[in-house]
Amino acid sequence: MLVNILNTDFSDKLRKFEIPTCLRVCAGTDGSVTFLLEIMTRHDVNVLTEKQHQVPADESMASLFDINVGNDVNCRVVMLVAGGIPYVYAKSLAPVERMPESVCQDMMRADIPIGKILREHGIETRRDFDTIEIIKGDSLFGCESVLSRSYKIIHNGDVLMWINEQMPVDGRWDL
Amino acid sequence: MLVNILNTDFSDKLRKFEIPTCLRVCAGTDGSVTFLLEIMTRHDVNVLTEKQHQVPADESMASLFDINVGNDVNCRVVMLVAGGIPYVYAKSLAPVERMPESVCQDMMRADIPIGKILREHGIETRRDFDTIEIIKGDSLFGCESVLSRSYKIIHNGDVLMWINEQMPVDGRWDL
Repeated sequence: MLVNILNTDFSDKLRKFEIPTCLRVCAGTDGSVTFLLEIMTRHDVNVLTEKQHQVPADESMASLFDINVGNDVNCRVVMLVAGGIPYVYAKSLAPVERMPESVCQDMMRADIPIGKILREHGIETRRDFDTIEIIKGDSLFGCESVLSRSYKIIHNGDVLMWINEQMPVDGRWDL
Repeated sequence: MLVNILNTDFSDKLRKFEIPTCLRVCAGTDGSVTFLLEIMTRHDVNVLTEKQHQVPADESMASLFDINVGNDVNCRVVMLVAGGIPYVYAKSLAPVERMPESVCQDMMRADIPIGKILREHGIETRRDFDTIEIIKGDSLFGCESVLSRSYKIIHNGDVLMWINEQMPVDGRWDL
Protein backbone atom coordinates (compact mmCIF):
# COMPACT_ATOMS: atom_id res chain seq x y z
CA MET A 1 0.00 0.00 0.00
CA LEU A 2 1.65 3.20 -1.16
CA VAL A 3 0.14 6.26 0.49
CA ASN A 4 0.73 9.87 -0.52
CA ILE A 5 1.39 10.77 3.09
CA LEU A 6 4.14 13.23 2.32
CA ASN A 7 1.51 15.63 0.96
CA THR A 8 3.71 17.28 -1.63
CA ASP A 9 1.39 20.30 -1.76
CA PHE A 10 2.14 20.95 1.92
CA SER A 11 5.90 20.70 1.34
CA ASP A 12 5.86 22.88 -1.77
CA LYS A 13 3.92 25.63 -0.01
CA LEU A 14 6.20 25.50 3.00
CA ARG A 15 9.36 25.81 0.93
CA LYS A 16 8.05 28.90 -0.85
CA PHE A 17 7.14 30.86 2.30
CA GLU A 18 9.60 33.70 3.01
CA ILE A 19 9.80 33.07 6.76
CA PRO A 20 12.56 32.50 9.34
CA THR A 21 14.23 29.07 9.01
CA CYS A 22 13.35 27.99 12.56
CA LEU A 23 9.70 28.79 11.94
CA ARG A 24 9.76 26.82 8.70
CA VAL A 25 11.33 23.91 10.55
CA CYS A 26 8.72 23.91 13.32
CA ALA A 27 5.93 24.24 10.77
CA GLY A 28 7.31 21.40 8.70
CA THR A 29 8.57 18.82 11.13
CA ASP A 30 6.96 15.40 11.23
CA GLY A 31 8.32 15.02 14.76
CA SER A 32 7.52 16.75 18.05
CA VAL A 33 7.26 20.57 17.88
CA THR A 34 7.79 20.93 21.64
CA PHE A 35 11.01 19.01 21.41
CA LEU A 36 12.28 21.13 18.50
CA LEU A 37 11.37 24.31 20.37
CA GLU A 38 13.42 23.13 23.34
CA ILE A 39 16.37 22.39 21.10
CA MET A 40 16.11 25.72 19.28
CA THR A 41 15.60 27.96 22.29
CA ARG A 42 17.63 25.88 24.77
CA HIS A 43 14.85 26.51 27.29
CA ASP A 44 12.24 24.17 28.71
CA VAL A 45 8.88 24.56 27.04
CA ASN A 46 5.98 25.45 29.33
CA VAL A 47 2.45 24.51 28.35
CA LEU A 48 -0.11 27.17 29.31
CA THR A 49 -3.59 25.73 29.05
CA GLU A 50 -6.46 27.91 27.85
CA LYS A 51 -9.06 25.13 27.62
CA GLN A 52 -9.20 21.46 28.50
CA HIS A 53 -12.60 19.79 28.35
CA GLN A 54 -14.60 17.08 26.64
CA VAL A 55 -17.28 17.66 24.04
CA PRO A 56 -19.68 15.29 22.27
CA ALA A 57 -18.55 14.66 18.68
CA ASP A 58 -20.50 16.66 16.09
CA GLU A 59 -20.86 15.34 12.54
CA SER A 60 -17.55 16.72 11.29
CA MET A 61 -15.62 15.32 14.27
CA ALA A 62 -17.36 11.96 13.91
CA SER A 63 -16.37 11.88 10.25
CA LEU A 64 -12.78 12.99 10.96
CA PHE A 65 -12.22 10.31 13.59
CA ASP A 66 -14.57 7.64 12.22
CA ILE A 67 -16.50 7.52 15.51
CA ASN A 68 -20.19 7.90 16.37
CA VAL A 69 -21.80 11.33 16.72
CA GLY A 70 -22.06 12.16 20.43
CA ASN A 71 -19.01 10.17 21.53
CA ASP A 72 -16.56 11.99 23.81
CA VAL A 73 -13.82 14.05 22.20
CA ASN A 74 -11.10 15.66 24.28
CA CYS A 75 -10.52 19.26 23.31
CA ARG A 76 -7.40 21.08 24.40
CA VAL A 77 -6.15 24.58 23.62
CA VAL A 78 -2.67 25.50 24.81
CA MET A 79 0.17 27.93 24.30
CA LEU A 80 3.77 26.72 24.11
CA VAL A 81 6.08 29.17 25.85
CA ALA A 82 9.88 28.98 26.03
CA GLY A 83 12.07 31.45 27.91
CA GLY A 84 9.03 33.63 28.57
CA ILE A 85 8.21 33.97 24.84
CA PRO A 86 5.07 32.36 23.34
CA TYR A 87 5.77 30.51 20.10
CA VAL A 88 2.82 28.24 19.35
CA TYR A 89 -0.95 28.33 19.89
CA ALA A 90 -2.21 24.76 19.54
CA LYS A 91 -5.68 23.22 19.44
CA SER A 92 -6.10 19.47 19.59
CA LEU A 93 -9.04 17.13 19.29
CA ALA A 94 -8.75 13.51 20.38
CA PRO A 95 -11.51 10.90 20.63
CA VAL A 96 -11.40 9.51 24.17
CA GLU A 97 -12.21 5.95 23.03
CA ARG A 98 -9.10 5.95 20.81
CA MET A 99 -6.59 6.88 23.52
CA PRO A 100 -4.72 4.25 25.49
CA GLU A 101 -5.88 4.67 29.14
CA SER A 102 -2.55 5.92 30.47
CA VAL A 103 -2.28 8.46 27.65
CA CYS A 104 -5.81 9.64 28.43
CA GLN A 105 -4.88 10.38 32.04
CA ASP A 106 -1.89 12.46 30.97
CA MET A 107 -3.98 14.32 28.39
CA MET A 108 -6.38 15.42 31.15
CA ARG A 109 -3.45 16.95 32.99
CA ALA A 110 -3.07 20.33 31.46
CA ASP A 111 0.67 20.82 31.64
CA ILE A 112 2.19 18.02 29.53
CA PRO A 113 2.86 18.58 25.82
CA ILE A 114 1.32 15.96 23.52
CA GLY A 115 4.66 15.01 21.97
CA LYS A 116 6.01 14.17 25.41
CA ILE A 117 2.93 12.16 26.36
CA LEU A 118 3.21 10.00 23.24
CA ARG A 119 6.96 9.62 23.69
CA GLU A 120 6.82 8.73 27.38
CA HIS A 121 4.28 6.01 26.71
CA GLY A 122 6.30 4.67 23.78
CA ILE A 123 3.44 5.17 21.32
CA GLU A 124 4.37 4.51 17.68
CA THR A 125 2.83 7.05 15.34
CA ARG A 126 3.08 8.81 12.09
CA ARG A 127 1.98 12.37 11.35
CA ASP A 128 -0.03 13.07 8.21
CA PHE A 129 -0.10 16.69 7.09
CA ASP A 130 -3.38 18.29 6.08
CA THR A 131 -3.11 22.03 5.42
CA ILE A 132 -0.68 24.91 5.78
CA GLU A 133 -1.31 28.60 5.14
CA ILE A 134 -0.30 32.08 6.24
CA ILE A 135 -3.20 34.14 7.54
CA LYS A 136 -2.99 37.94 7.55
CA GLY A 137 -5.06 40.26 9.72
CA ASP A 138 -5.67 38.13 12.80
CA SER A 139 -3.37 38.86 15.70
CA LEU A 140 -1.46 36.17 17.59
CA PHE A 141 1.00 37.01 20.36
CA GLY A 142 1.16 40.59 19.05
CA CYS A 143 1.80 39.58 15.42
CA GLU A 144 -0.53 40.21 12.44
CA SER A 145 0.82 37.43 10.24
CA VAL A 146 0.13 33.89 11.41
CA LEU A 147 1.25 30.55 10.01
CA SER A 148 -1.41 27.90 10.55
CA ARG A 149 -0.97 24.18 9.93
CA SER A 150 -3.10 21.13 10.60
CA TYR A 151 -2.17 17.48 10.77
CA LYS A 152 -3.31 14.14 12.08
CA ILE A 153 -1.45 11.82 14.40
CA ILE A 154 -2.06 8.24 13.28
CA HIS A 155 -1.74 5.28 15.64
CA ASN A 156 -2.70 1.69 14.81
CA GLY A 157 -4.04 2.96 11.50
CA ASP A 158 -6.62 5.23 13.20
CA VAL A 159 -6.67 8.98 13.74
CA LEU A 160 -5.59 9.41 17.36
CA MET A 161 -5.52 13.22 17.26
CA TRP A 162 -6.17 16.16 15.02
CA ILE A 163 -3.98 19.16 15.70
CA ASN A 164 -3.98 22.75 14.50
CA GLU A 165 -0.94 24.85 15.36
CA GLN A 166 -0.62 28.59 14.83
CA MET A 167 2.72 30.37 14.92
CA PRO A 168 3.42 34.11 14.62
CA VAL A 169 5.53 35.02 11.55
CA ASP A 170 8.07 37.39 13.08
CA GLY A 171 11.60 37.82 14.39
CA ARG A 172 11.12 35.70 17.53
CA TRP A 173 12.08 32.72 15.32
CA ASP A 174 15.57 34.10 14.56
CA LEU A 175 17.15 31.60 16.94
CA MET B 1 4.26 1.17 30.86
CA LEU B 2 6.28 4.34 31.26
CA VAL B 3 9.51 4.28 29.28
CA ASN B 4 12.40 6.73 29.55
CA ILE B 5 12.46 7.09 25.82
CA LEU B 6 13.21 10.77 25.87
CA ASN B 7 16.72 9.96 27.07
CA THR B 8 17.27 13.11 29.13
CA ASP B 9 21.05 12.64 28.96
CA PHE B 10 20.85 12.96 25.18
CA SER B 11 18.75 16.13 25.43
CA ASP B 12 20.94 17.73 28.10
CA LYS B 13 24.10 17.15 26.08
CA LEU B 14 22.52 18.50 22.93
CA ARG B 15 21.35 21.70 24.61
CA LYS B 16 24.82 22.43 25.94
CA PHE B 17 26.66 22.07 22.62
CA GLU B 18 27.72 25.45 21.19
CA ILE B 19 26.73 24.66 17.61
CA PRO B 20 24.58 26.31 14.90
CA THR B 21 20.85 26.08 15.65
CA CYS B 22 20.01 24.18 12.44
CA LEU B 23 22.65 21.59 13.26
CA ARG B 24 21.24 21.21 16.77
CA VAL B 25 17.77 20.78 15.31
CA CYS B 26 18.85 18.09 12.83
CA ALA B 27 20.81 16.31 15.54
CA GLY B 28 17.88 16.43 17.94
CA THR B 29 14.81 15.81 15.87
CA ASP B 30 12.71 12.72 16.51
CA GLY B 31 11.35 13.09 12.98
CA SER B 32 12.92 12.73 9.55
CA VAL B 33 16.33 14.42 9.09
CA THR B 34 16.00 14.40 5.31
CA PHE B 35 12.72 16.22 5.53
CA LEU B 36 14.15 18.85 7.91
CA LEU B 37 17.15 19.33 5.61
CA GLU B 38 14.80 19.98 2.70
CA ILE B 39 12.86 22.52 4.74
CA MET B 40 16.01 24.25 5.97
CA THR B 41 17.89 24.43 2.69
CA ARG B 42 14.83 24.69 0.42
CA HIS B 43 16.55 22.21 -1.88
CA ASP B 44 15.76 18.59 -2.63
CA VAL B 45 17.99 16.20 -0.74
CA ASN B 46 20.01 13.78 -2.84
CA VAL B 47 21.14 10.47 -1.40
CA LEU B 48 24.62 9.44 -2.56
CA THR B 49 25.22 5.81 -1.71
CA GLU B 50 28.67 4.66 -0.64
CA LYS B 51 27.66 1.12 0.30
CA GLN B 52 24.54 -0.99 0.08
CA HIS B 53 24.85 -4.67 0.85
CA GLN B 54 23.74 -7.44 3.19
CA VAL B 55 25.86 -8.99 5.90
CA PRO B 56 25.25 -11.91 8.26
CA ALA B 57 24.50 -10.65 11.79
CA ASP B 58 27.45 -10.87 14.18
CA GLU B 59 26.86 -11.24 17.92
CA SER B 60 26.45 -7.52 18.59
CA MET B 61 23.98 -7.07 15.72
CA ALA B 62 22.05 -10.16 16.83
CA SER B 63 21.82 -8.71 20.33
CA LEU B 64 20.87 -5.23 19.11
CA PHE B 65 18.04 -6.52 16.93
CA ASP B 66 17.10 -9.62 18.94
CA ILE B 67 17.67 -11.89 15.92
CA ASN B 68 19.81 -14.99 15.37
CA VAL B 69 23.51 -14.72 14.61
CA GLY B 70 23.99 -15.15 10.86
CA ASN B 71 20.63 -13.75 9.80
CA ASP B 72 20.69 -11.14 7.03
CA VAL B 73 21.19 -7.51 7.99
CA ASN B 74 20.97 -4.76 5.42
CA CYS B 75 23.84 -2.31 5.70
CA ARG B 76 23.66 1.07 4.04
CA VAL B 77 26.08 4.00 4.07
CA VAL B 78 24.95 7.21 2.41
CA MET B 79 25.59 10.93 2.22
CA LEU B 80 22.74 13.41 2.26
CA VAL B 81 23.46 16.30 -0.08
CA ALA B 82 21.33 19.41 -0.60
CA GLY B 83 22.11 22.19 -3.07
CA GLY B 84 25.47 20.56 -3.80
CA ILE B 85 26.55 20.65 -0.12
CA PRO B 86 26.96 17.44 1.91
CA TYR B 87 25.32 17.67 5.35
CA VAL B 88 25.00 14.17 6.75
CA TYR B 89 26.96 10.92 6.57
CA ALA B 90 24.60 8.14 7.66
CA LYS B 91 25.10 4.45 8.35
CA SER B 92 22.11 2.19 8.88
CA LEU B 93 21.67 -1.42 9.85
CA ALA B 94 18.31 -3.14 9.39
CA PRO B 95 17.49 -6.84 9.84
CA VAL B 96 15.91 -8.02 6.60
CA GLU B 97 13.40 -10.30 8.40
CA ARG B 98 12.00 -7.27 10.28
CA MET B 99 11.25 -5.15 7.24
CA PRO B 100 7.85 -5.20 5.57
CA GLU B 101 8.45 -6.59 2.05
CA SER B 102 7.67 -3.37 0.20
CA VAL B 103 9.98 -1.40 2.51
CA CYS B 104 12.73 -3.94 1.88
CA GLN B 105 12.51 -3.41 -1.87
CA ASP B 106 12.85 0.35 -1.47
CA MET B 107 15.77 -0.06 0.95
CA MET B 108 17.67 -2.02 -1.73
CA ARG B 109 17.27 0.91 -4.07
CA ALA B 110 20.10 3.17 -3.19
CA ASP B 111 18.57 6.56 -3.82
CA ILE B 112 15.63 6.84 -1.43
CA PRO B 113 16.12 8.32 2.07
CA ILE B 114 14.90 6.10 4.92
CA GLY B 115 12.51 8.74 6.29
CA LYS B 116 10.77 8.89 2.91
CA ILE B 117 10.58 5.10 2.63
CA LEU B 118 8.88 4.79 6.03
CA ARG B 119 6.59 7.72 5.29
CA GLU B 120 5.55 6.52 1.85
CA HIS B 121 4.62 3.13 3.21
CA GLY B 122 2.70 4.69 6.11
CA ILE B 123 4.85 2.91 8.71
CA GLU B 124 4.17 4.01 12.31
CA THR B 125 7.36 4.35 14.32
CA ARG B 126 9.04 6.01 17.21
CA ARG B 127 12.71 6.97 17.39
CA ASP B 128 14.64 6.14 20.56
CA PHE B 129 17.87 8.05 21.05
CA ASP B 130 21.03 6.23 22.08
CA THR B 131 24.12 8.44 22.05
CA ILE B 132 25.29 11.86 20.97
CA GLU B 133 28.82 13.27 21.03
CA ILE B 134 31.14 15.67 19.26
CA ILE B 135 34.28 14.01 17.91
CA LYS B 136 37.39 16.07 17.24
CA GLY B 137 40.22 15.08 14.92
CA ASP B 138 38.43 12.98 12.31
CA SER B 139 37.58 14.79 9.13
CA LEU B 140 34.14 14.78 7.57
CA PHE B 141 33.31 16.80 4.46
CA GLY B 142 36.40 18.93 5.12
CA CYS B 143 35.55 19.62 8.76
CA GLU B 144 37.60 18.48 11.82
CA SER B 145 34.72 18.60 14.32
CA VAL B 146 31.95 16.05 13.84
CA LEU B 147 28.68 15.58 15.67
CA SER B 148 27.73 11.91 15.86
CA ARG B 149 24.40 10.55 17.06
CA SER B 150 22.85 7.11 17.13
CA TYR B 151 19.25 6.06 17.50
CA LYS B 152 16.87 3.21 16.89
CA ILE B 153 13.70 3.25 14.84
CA ILE B 154 11.08 1.15 16.61
CA HIS B 155 8.16 -0.46 14.78
CA ASN B 156 5.67 -2.91 16.28
CA GLY B 157 7.78 -2.86 19.44
CA ASP B 158 10.87 -4.21 17.65
CA VAL B 159 14.04 -2.48 16.48
CA LEU B 160 13.47 -1.97 12.75
CA MET B 161 16.69 0.00 12.20
CA TRP B 162 19.77 1.28 13.95
CA ILE B 163 21.12 4.51 12.55
CA ASN B 164 24.30 6.50 13.11
CA GLU B 165 24.44 9.98 11.61
CA GLN B 166 27.49 12.20 11.48
CA MET B 167 27.29 15.91 10.75
CA PRO B 168 30.14 18.41 10.35
CA VAL B 169 30.13 21.17 12.98
CA ASP B 170 30.68 24.24 10.83
CA GLY B 171 29.10 27.24 9.14
CA ARG B 172 27.25 25.25 6.48
CA TRP B 173 24.43 24.96 9.05
CA ASP B 174 23.87 28.75 9.21
CA LEU B 175 20.72 28.45 7.14
